[in-house]
Amino acid sequence: MVGRTNIETGKVTRETALAAFSYRLKTAVAPLVPCAAAMERLHRGARHRILSKGDHILRAGTVADEVFFVHQGLLRYYFNDPNDGGQERTGQFFDEGIVVTDAESFLARVPAKQNFEALETSSIIVLPRTVLNAGYDADHAIDRFGRLMLEEALVGSQRRASRLLTLQPEDRYRLFVETRPEIARRVPQYLIASYLGLTPESLSRIRRRIAGQVG
Amino acid sequence: MVGRTNIETGKVTRETALAAFSYRLKTAVAPLVPCAAAMERLHRGARHRILSKGDHILRAGTVADEVFFVHQGLLRYYFNDPNDGGQERTGQFFDEGIVVTDAESFLARVPAKQNFEALETSSIIVLPRTVLNAGYDADHAIDRFGRLMLEEALVGSQRRASRLLTLQPEDRYRLFVETRPEIARRVPQYLIASYLGLTPESLSRIRRRIAGQVG
Repeated sequence: MVGRTNIETGKVTRETALAAFSYRLKTAVAPLVPCAAAMERLHRGARHRILSKGDHILRAGTVADEVFFVHQGLLRYYFNDPNDGGQERTGQFFDEGIVVTDAESFLARVPAKQNFEALETSSIIVLPRTVLNAGYDADHAIDRFGRLMLEEALVGSQRRASRLLTLQPEDRYRLFVETRPEIARRVPQYLIASYLGLTPESLSRIRRRIAGQVG
Repeated sequence: MVGRTNIETGKVTRETALAAFSYRLKTAVAPLVPCAAAMERLHRGARHRILSKGDHILRAGTVADEVFFVHQGLLRYYFNDPNDGGQERTGQFFDEGIVVTDAESFLARVPAKQNFEALETSSIIVLPRTVLNAGYDADHAIDRFGRLMLEEALVGSQRRASRLLTLQPEDRYRLFVETRPEIARRVPQYLIASYLGLTPESLSRIRRRIAGQVG
């Protein structure tokens, strides 16, 4: 990881955020090397945003014309379940180094179904569709970066769906804590419950049961 | 579409199937043009298979080391639902021109959860992972083809999940018949019911109700 800075003290600049994005891109596409001209175009077209906790970078109902690179901080996406009186469901958490957007909205240009919200103060590089598409055309490495991000997204989306279908609640929680311990530490319990498809009360019971087994 | 031949009379050759695949690839990546050497390597590495109705090209529990291009015919994937006594669920139908595999298994090299079965006599081009990866490295156009196939897969997977979550059964059926009339005509009703998450009896009731409204 390239130089980390403290968001709260305001030392995060567009340059440090862009450097982290470039590092992520180059690492992903190795042994291809992105050409300098294509990287320069991406950098010129990228915006940098600092989100406060609770800020939204994308809201359901609008078309996602951008992808987001999480430089520092933590986002989640959520939607309101029409089959359950609009109850809020957490889809996924995204921490540093992840590139994300509402994929169907971005790719098919339809209104987003998901809301993307910062759970902590976050530093985000925003890449407009036009900038990304120009990058795809200019450079094999950028096109490959797009392919690899989509592979991650597809595997993640299918894995999550199959775990929700096949694992019992306690196993879902154990797997979450094992595979994403940092997120489990940083996210409030009621959001973890919503992510795992549990009520906060069921999650508390599971946590007490596991603590009892350990003690 | 390039020259169609009759599978049943045995006139489908490796060459006609490969020509259809190349046409699909070139159409997808335009205005990029795949270089002849990379296309030649893809062709040399590809196998051609004729599946009879009921044949499987991939079974749950094995690792998917190949992607499949449907030249002619019709496939479906299905899995056995562990939460419902192993009941068979149809995930999706794939007809001519579609490139498909168990994505998580192929990309993350884990055992497939899905079974891929021919619903009609089918002509399939089989591309091994090694061949596809060599193509990605050799040619920008092949890498882009991979990206575009993944975009299709991700949009399809998310759209399907959200429709199952948000649409009432009758609307799910209407949308299916509207958007995939060919499939609705070629697939037996009990598989359409399984795809829509309905019992065959509920689907019959819905069809009678709709016929009544039209008549």
